[in-house]
Amino acid sequence: MRASVLHPGGRMTVETRAVPIPDPGDVLIAVAAVGVCGSDTHYLRHGRIGEFEVTAPIVLGHEASGRIVAVGEGVSAARIGERVSIEPQRPEAFSPETLRGEYNLCPGMRFYATPPIDGALAEYVTIGSAFAHAVPDTISDEAAALFEPLSVAIASLRKAGVGLGGSVLIAGAGPIGLLCAQVARASGAARIVVSDPDPARRGAATSFGATTALTPGDDAGTGFDAFIDASGAPAAIDAGIPAVRPGGRIVLVGMGADRLELPVSLIQAHELILTGVFRYANTWPTAIALAAGGAVDLDAMVTARFPLDEAEAALNADRTPGTIKAVVYPGRTATDLPREATA
Amino acid sequence: MRASVLHPGGRMTVETRAVPIPDPGDVLIAVAAVGVCGSDTHYLRHGRIGEFEVTAPIVLGHEASGRIVAVGEGVSAARIGERVSIEPQRPEAFSPETLRGEYNLCPGMRFYATPPIDGALAEYVTIGSAFAHAVPDTISDEAAALFEPLSVAIASLRKAGVGLGGSVLIAGAGPIGLLCAQVARASGAARIVVSDPDPARRGAATSFGATTALTPGDDAGTGFDAFIDASGAPAAIDAGIPAVRPGGRIVLVGMGADRLELPVSLIQAHELILTGVFRYANTWPTAIALAAGGAVDLDAMVTARFPLDEAEAALNADRTPGTIKAVVYPGRTATDLPREATA
Amino acid sequence: MRASVLHPGGRMTVETRAVPIPDPGDVLIAVAAVGVCGSDTHYLRHGRIGEFEVTAPIVLGHEASGRIVAVGEGVSAARIGERVSIEPQRPEAFSPETLRGEYNLCPGMRFYATPPIDGALAEYVTIGSAFAHAVPDTISDEAAALFEPLSVAIASLRKAGVGLGGSVLIAGAGPIGLLCAQVARASGAARIVVSDPDPARRGAATSFGATTALTPGDDAGTGFDAFIDASGAPAAIDAGIPAVRPGGRIVLVGMGADRLELPVSLIQAHELILTGVFRYANTWPTAIALAAGGAVDLDAMVTARFPLDEAEAALNADRTPGTIKAVVYPGRTATDLPREATA
Amino acid sequence: MRASVLHPGGRMTVETRAVPIPDPGDVLIAVAAVGVCGSDTHYLRHGRIGEFEVTAPIVLGHEASGRIVAVGEGVSAARIGERVSIEPQRPEAFSPETLRGEYNLCPGMRFYATPPIDGALAEYVTIGSAFAHAVPDTISDEAAALFEPLSVAIASLRKAGVGLGGSVLIAGAGPIGLLCAQVARASGAARIVVSDPDPARRGAATSFGATTALTPGDDAGTGFDAFIDASGAPAAIDAGIPAVRPGGRIVLVGMGADRLELPVSLIQAHELILTGVFRYANTWPTAIALAAGGAVDLDAMVTARFPLDEAEAALNADRTPGTIKAVVYPGRTATDLPREATA
Repeated sequence: MRASVLHPGGRMTVETRAVPIPDPGDVLIAVAAVGVCGSDTHYLRHGRIGEFEVTAPIVLGHEASGRIVAVGEGVSAARIGERVSIEPQRPEAFSPETLRGEYNLCPGMRFYATPPIDGALAEYVTIGSAFAHAVPDTISDEAAALFEPLSVAIASLRKAGVGLGGSVLIAGAGPIGLLCAQVARASGAARIVVSDPDPARRGAATSFGATTALTPGDDAGTGFDAFIDASGAPAAIDAGIPAVRPGGRIVLVGMGADRLELPVSLIQAHELILTGVFRYANTWPTAIALAAGGAVDLDAMVTARFPLDEAEAALNADRTPGTIKAVVYPGRTATDLPREATA
Repeated sequence: MRASVLHPGGRMTVETRAVPIPDPGDVLIAVAAVGVCGSDTHYLRHGRIGEFEVTAPIVLGHEASGRIVAVGEGVSAARIGERVSIEPQRPEAFSPETLRGEYNLCPGMRFYATPPIDGALAEYVTIGSAFAHAVPDTISDEAAALFEPLSVAIASLRKAGVGLGGSVLIAGAGPIGLLCAQVARASGAARIVVSDPDPARRGAATSFGATTALTPGDDAGTGFDAFIDASGAPAAIDAGIPAVRPGGRIVLVGMGADRLELPVSLIQAHELILTGVFRYANTWPTAIALAAGGAVDLDAMVTARFPLDEAEAALNADRTPGTIKAVVYPGRTATDLPREATA
Repeated sequence: MRASVLHPGGRMTVETRAVPIPDPGDVLIAVAAVGVCGSDTHYLRHGRIGEFEVTAPIVLGHEASGRIVAVGEGVSAARIGERVSIEPQRPEAFSPETLRGEYNLCPGMRFYATPPIDGALAEYVTIGSAFAHAVPDTISDEAAALFEPLSVAIASLRKAGVGLGGSVLIAGAGPIGLLCAQVARASGAARIVVSDPDPARRGAATSFGATTALTPGDDAGTGFDAFIDASGAPAAIDAGIPAVRPGGRIVLVGMGADRLELPVSLIQAHELILTGVFRYANTWPTAIALAAGGAVDLDAMVTARFPLDEAEAALNADRTPGTIKAVVYPGRTATDLPREATA
Repeated sequence: MRASVLHPGGRMTVETRAVPIPDPGDVLIAVAAVGVCGSDTHYLRHGRIGEFEVTAPIVLGHEASGRIVAVGEGVSAARIGERVSIEPQRPEAFSPETLRGEYNLCPGMRFYATPPIDGALAEYVTIGSAFAHAVPDTISDEAAALFEPLSVAIASLRKAGVGLGGSVLIAGAGPIGLLCAQVARASGAARIVVSDPDPARRGAATSFGATTALTPGDDAGTGFDAFIDASGAPAAIDAGIPAVRPGGRIVLVGMGADRLELPVSLIQAHELILTGVFRYANTWPTAIALAAGGAVDLDAMVTARFPLDEAEAALNADRTPGTIKAVVYPGRTATDLPREATA
């Protein structure tokens, strides 16, 4: 099979590798679509994210969908042929974290495209059978791939605790910020304010559920049940925290500095609750329900499409104005790409 | 002022009474619209509900909206002229229940239209200023009145814990069942199954958010995150409980028998969580947000309108097929009633 | 190895069987001590519990401790020699229930001594490595065996939500009721009232943490944060529910009738929360902490000791007045039994 | 009556003032004992805490007990003579925060000894009847006064979520740190590690419930369910956060800098939950239960006693090595002070 490989130093190649053989409990998936995440681009450009460093060739990509083509021991052969969205994580089965429902925090986690674990920019991948989630035919390949960033947004909104009739301020209208706005809307939030310096992104925010889209520095108002930072920008975080009502929540999703100065006396005086999001657990069933019911629109977020040969261009698509989400189709050629989202 | 009065024995009259003077902390409201609740009808027909008995003349009606026309000591006169939805309860200020956020459970509660406390079927009423909730002009008088049953539905969904992408089975498509369906939809629930023996009500259920409407006895499926009984029917409760997934919830809203045989070994084996709803606390801000944002449609639930002189007919409107919610307009005459919902 | 076997019809024998070979991920344990549970006795006398029927020979016993003597593939050989308490359940690794932290509700569960799965009344057993919990040497073999009923009590108190300064009414002072009292005390509960018809058990309740021990029918007072039924007696349940404060909880642990008449209108009016306990999840770390720190006393609950040959007598020990918990020592002879608890 | 008054600029005097007349709903209390809090001392030395500034004469003291000597309108005269612990806050009755059970966050709060509201260093004070909590005679005056800092500790442990068998790291062994250790012990926590630079305080920590007492910089271990900072020291906070397990909590109780640099990427990667404590709500019933049952020892924390004339010396008692808590007795003379804690 062909796979897109990032080498230490930043060179990308397309290589031929053996099709993997599914381990017991795993399924083999012919990859249909792979969304590009900012972390993939960060590995390409910087060679590391925090403690994870590209010291050996690695296949990137962790937002993926496809079709099951083979199954490992212990998995029903009836699954062969299923269209699936891939939850790209392999927690340990019975670690304390997994057993208490926080498998994303399992220290033994092996996660796609996180060194040294290969990701999905390849024609075939394997994953645990329970992490290959069947999707109905009404959901497109690329929408199924985007269940992954959707899951980050679902996890963020769960932590934000914004529910029916609630209010949320979201900093940053990149893919995660936009998906947070969509999930907030689907959750019944009544006031969804998104801030972003880019006018095109503000426009996207409005179309994806924001009740108001602002330029950073504009007055967002106060009394929000929660503030979600999807920007990683210290100024945005500083502006967002005082906008939260007493007892409200702050969820830091965007990656930024390792350390950050925060207004702790305000956090104390208002008993604000600050936390972060590290991937997700138990989000795929929710993602499927939302996408199948039309409560979120993933297809409209795809703005650029590439064959596997052009994976590097896909990773750099963020440099093209107006890009929200680039998608790579490992099984297709440049002339065979979908022209627009199908649903 | 004129007030509709229920006498012990079941006779109803319209009487002239003094306009109440607002106590310190209260507001005086000219009542615009009053929804009829099944409990009002029950008092008319049976003279009691549980331990509450009509032993002296009483004004019924606890779903009400109006306009503030005077304020008691300590309330800003700037409130005069405000259109408001009335939260018809007067908990004690600092009882243990109130202080921990469960003011609906306050044993010192005085609640509209619950003997011996008068309700809203009158031209003027008073309530604590904090319980007269300002509504925007985009919300009609009758919608503002129906925030009360909407609050029961909001409280029910909170207890049901059905959120984004979740599933709920609702027995009964009367006003509360229909509002539960609407609130479930607004909360992002993906599967909302409503059962009712009446085809017209099943039709209403579908238009108000049910993804499926069934006849009792039909197979509703299983694996629901929650079952809400809004029927009070033992057979419906018996059918609903086994449809809940392990760890899911059962919320009994409908009033029925004092005691009921329940499948306790199933509740144990599946660790189901069963509870009931007794009014509501902290629901009006949510109700306003939902109604103002269009997430629920209250106007479409009003199917019959009456002047105060015909309050008894309004209480008996449930005998007319197709009735969902009857509304009384204490300040209007028979020729001055709204023809249809205004928004 | 020798194993105590219950045959359909109720005959018990001691048989010789092959020592099991640990599967991948499992450990092989030389069983030290096995507590007798009422469910074991019930299988002996009635041949079934609910849907689970003894249709083939089965080894009973699910409260067990021992020492790891071999490990399956993938388990570190360093574990050999460890003293362990056995959590007698085998949930599926990645079922939806397991992934969300409710592995006790996993429908694919295989549980010791529940037909057709063999239990621990044998010289050797296997279990998943993560379910063999290391215990410090300060904890006796029999205390380590009793982590299982202690886990039921921990799960019950978690569901009861009785914490610091709280109050709980417990019906039944059998092993589970007594352990609930102990766990309530360890949790900081300030009022712990236990009711039981047996004076000896009431005495035990007082020594194990009850602040008051009552005869059923005595006035237990009201305002309890929770009521835990560990009796299964309908009269006890009927008496306990009204003693709970508005918003409080009812936890049904004791097994009794399949269906039971309950005061639903009271549950509604007081918004009581009723649930059941089905085994436990994530309790062993808590059990170890409690036992190691001396917050609970398990050794004092052991009132009778038997060799494997006398397993049937152990199962019938409940017929001896004063018995709280009987323990079987599969690796010991009648002359080699511990005389009293060691710690 | 006599009252101890702090003047702007830092001068303290004892003045004669009129005994206050209880407003409707209030009680008048003859003050028995007043604990000195670090915030009192801070006002004396610095004239302000955050936005609260001493711009007019103020009576300090907010940890108080006494006896009801008169009642305002609407309060039963039967309360006269009751010994009470004072919860020194006056939230608005029906603010949104109060109605949802977070009355400590009510923006209309009037709190003892917070400018411009007078506190309890006087012979008589008034408070809302519901905030004068009856205490049994087994609880000493000074213990009843210390329910206030005990409440801070109870609120801290609730937010820390450390329960049965849990673990907590506490930085700082001043009164709040020591009370947190006591409350953690009462909650069933199994590992309670306290750090403080002062050997005497470390000794106190051990006697009040710490399983280990460390010098800052010592290795506290890792995997704590929660870290409570009761020091306000940035170095302590920096050391404590990495000691928390994934998914665990950080509660900042100690007051320190307005802004602080925090390890946000660690908070994100481990999904830590960080919050602060601002006073307390609904803690007195818990405090009474703990003190009455002997689960906490407040009397042993009192290390210095003063008459009202020496209030300034009491506020400066923290300069005396070994001081944990100084108490002022407004109704006693220097020769009439209790020699030691009575219970």
